[in-house]
Amino acid sequence: MSRPRAVIVVTGSELVRGERTDLNGPFLARECLSLGLEPARIEIVGDSAEELAGALEGGLAADLLVTSGGLGPTHDDRTVEVLARILDRPLGVDPALEEEIGTLSRTFAARMGRPYADFEAGVRKQASLPAGARSLGLAGTAPALLLEQEETVIVVLPGPPRELQHLWPRALETDALRALLARATPPGRRVLRFFGASESAVARALDEAGGDGDGVEATICARDFEIHVDLVLDPAAERRADELERALAERLEPYLFARGEQAVEELVLELCRARGLTLATAESCTGGMVAARLTDVPGSSDVFLGGLVAYADGVKRKELGVPVEVLERHGAVSAETAAEMSRGARSRLGADVAVSVTGVAGPDGGSAEKPVGLVYLHAAGPDGERSVDFNLRGDRETIRRRATVSALHLVRRLLTQNGHSPV
Amino acid sequence: MSRPRAVIVVTGSELVRGERTDLNGPFLARECLSLGLEPARIEIVGDSAEELAGALEGGLAADLLVTSGGLGPTHDDRTVEVLARILDRPLGVDPALEEEIGTLSRTFAARMGRPYADFEAGVRKQASLPAGARSLGLAGTAPALLLEQEETVIVVLPGPPRELQHLWPRALETDALRALLARATPPGRRVLRFFGASESAVARALDEAGGDGDGVEATICARDFEIHVDLVLDPAAERRADELERALAERLEPYLFARGEQAVEELVLELCRARGLTLATAESCTGGMVAARLTDVPGSSDVFLGGLVAYADGVKRKELGVPVEVLERHGAVSAETAAEMSRGARSRLGADVAVSVTGVAGPDGGSAEKPVGLVYLHAAGPDGERSVDFNLRGDRETIRRRATVSALHLVRRLLTQNGHSPV
Repeated sequence: MSRPRAVIVVTGSELVRGERTDLNGPFLARECLSLGLEPARIEIVGDSAEELAGALEGGLAADLLVTSGGLGPTHDDRTVEVLARILDRPLGVDPALEEEIGTLSRTFAARMGRPYADFEAGVRKQASLPAGARSLGLAGTAPALLLEQEETVIVVLPGPPRELQHLWPRALETDALRALLARATPPGRRVLRFFGASESAVARALDEAGGDGDGVEATICARDFEIHVDLVLDPAAERRADELERALAERLEPYLFARGEQAVEELVLELCRARGLTLATAESCTGGMVAARLTDVPGSSDVFLGGLVAYADGVKRKELGVPVEVLERHGAVSAETAAEMSRGARSRLGADVAVSVTGVAGPDGGSAEKPVGLVYLHAAGPDGERSVDFNLRGDRETIRRRATVSALHLVRRLLTQNGHSPV
Repeated sequence: MSRPRAVIVVTGSELVRGERTDLNGPFLARECLSLGLEPARIEIVGDSAEELAGALEGGLAADLLVTSGGLGPTHDDRTVEVLARILDRPLGVDPALEEEIGTLSRTFAARMGRPYADFEAGVRKQASLPAGARSLGLAGTAPALLLEQEETVIVVLPGPPRELQHLWPRALETDALRALLARATPPGRRVLRFFGASESAVARALDEAGGDGDGVEATICARDFEIHVDLVLDPAAERRADELERALAERLEPYLFARGEQAVEELVLELCRARGLTLATAESCTGGMVAARLTDVPGSSDVFLGGLVAYADGVKRKELGVPVEVLERHGAVSAETAAEMSRGARSRLGADVAVSVTGVAGPDGGSAEKPVGLVYLHAAGPDGERSVDFNLRGDRETIRRRATVSALHLVRRLLTQNGHSPV
């Protein structure tokens, strides 16, 4: 059974020029996929009417065409006009819509101290709809629209991601989209997350378990040492998915850390919370990134007390109590300093558990003995301590990000007493 | 004069499904733009041969067609095969390439402990080129390719962004691309960055200065309180660009903080370095993000000593010396606590300059008196202090990001004695 196809057309000259990364295409694609539609194509075009027309025409062969952007009041905003042209439908002002947008624009004009006349043309433009289109609601002063053309449902959404995400659910409530979705079967989904296994080890385990197919599609994604396996399945393939999931979990048991989309920082906070433990950080080369990841989670303040970013050696000594002899003998980037940092953070901040990171993030500061990418991590808690070191590859940003993820996993492994060694 | 057009086709099922964000399209688009080509379209398709063929065929109308992905050894990697089909050129094994890829694969097979026979079909596939194609070099075991078809230059690149970025310059060295670029004129570019002015104030200033056009194209982009204005100009429009740049700088002088792409954290570090000042941070709701931004800059360690993430009140008291009376009387989220935090960080960490952030990032923890989004910032230095507070809108992530940017700008303004009030 083939899924209904969706085509996504994103307009914006800053997007097609790479000056800003498009978020709407991926958002809409994920939405379509979860509803049982096949996202066939994401097309990003600028504000050239010709390019836009080509992209929209191509989308009319799909079951669903969703557009993002080009709904503003200026002459560069062409989505509605181009759509009317290729559908060969007249554009007409919708009086109710004109009044709604007009009211908003009057308020705005008053606040800006500008005459309403400046806005009038824009209001008429934004209230002009192709025959047969209906408004799904306003984003700012721009209406999102729904149209049907033969077998294709067309949803016209604004460009700002927040507004697009706000109005998309309205499209889902329409009869047209409901009828389309009645022909689609939302796929099942299983998520397995591993840490410390290589991507090829996970791919091999999947192969050995018989691979995907038979209604199960597997995606393996490596993200900073984590390997995310997504199984997308037809409703009839539940048993096969169970088998695959079990086989992967067995073969890679020591590395499996989540079944689901929970991030490692959430797991760490939950593990602490479950045992009533508080947490602190001591960071050198990651410069606050571990603390930032932890505090990104709402409600982290009941577990996370705080952390020290000890960039200078003086701060490591004074604020974390790393003995000067340790720094002199082993250096700031050493297993010994990492151990003292986490112990120091534990005692200074009065936390039950602390994790530390020290390393050479580069691009400068490396040596033959301590090259760029060398990172030491240490975690200390009420039941003991754990440490690990890495020779990370990549640029400064990659090294810092990988060290951050590894530090969070070290805490997780300390708290779960997971005995495996990372590969 | 119209610029030669470039079409970018990106393949990858995880990309068209929104499971991973495409970085190659934006990278290639920026490259094309800076070389004087017009990036007309970025098209993301999965591994369906039909979709891919449609996208590639569409690209043949452009002057340059660049593809990313689909070069691997498996049956899902179809770029070369589909390209050969739509160009109607036979695929043939290139013996030299087969040997090169074979040698790599033998080494790999030995390391993995697998028989080379497992790889042989993949090697032959990857060494098969459409007639007339030339290899630009290998990424892993996949060759990047260059072809010409009538007036179109076709560049076939691998999907992993690092490999794509590594091989793209090789395409630029070919005669075919050199000839194409000889017809293109790289545009000039001016960048102005403002902080504290609203997007509409900047748009109005641009309007009042006569707006863009006449060979100058302006893009206004709002990013966490910063407004970035990009002027892209034809070579003949230098004078007009000068005028626009001058007019914008005059009208918005108090808000202009950079002419160029330098980030505020780099400016802050340079301002400190120029005066021999050291810097520290004291963060509550941003949880280390200010420190992380500063340490993201290579070489920041000569200025940045470290910081405290003081999430719990106990840490604010004990590690930053915020008096218990201040916390009790004014609360942890208050101008008074922010002031004590930055003074505390200055003295505890022995830094010349310190900046602090305390606020309610939400979604919980707000009250009528201190709602979600209320943030206090304070900066203290050898010449004095500055403070500011905001009622930030948005979700937790947005609030934290905006507070981070604002904290960095507060330090900049302290060090430059910039007297404007933010809007």
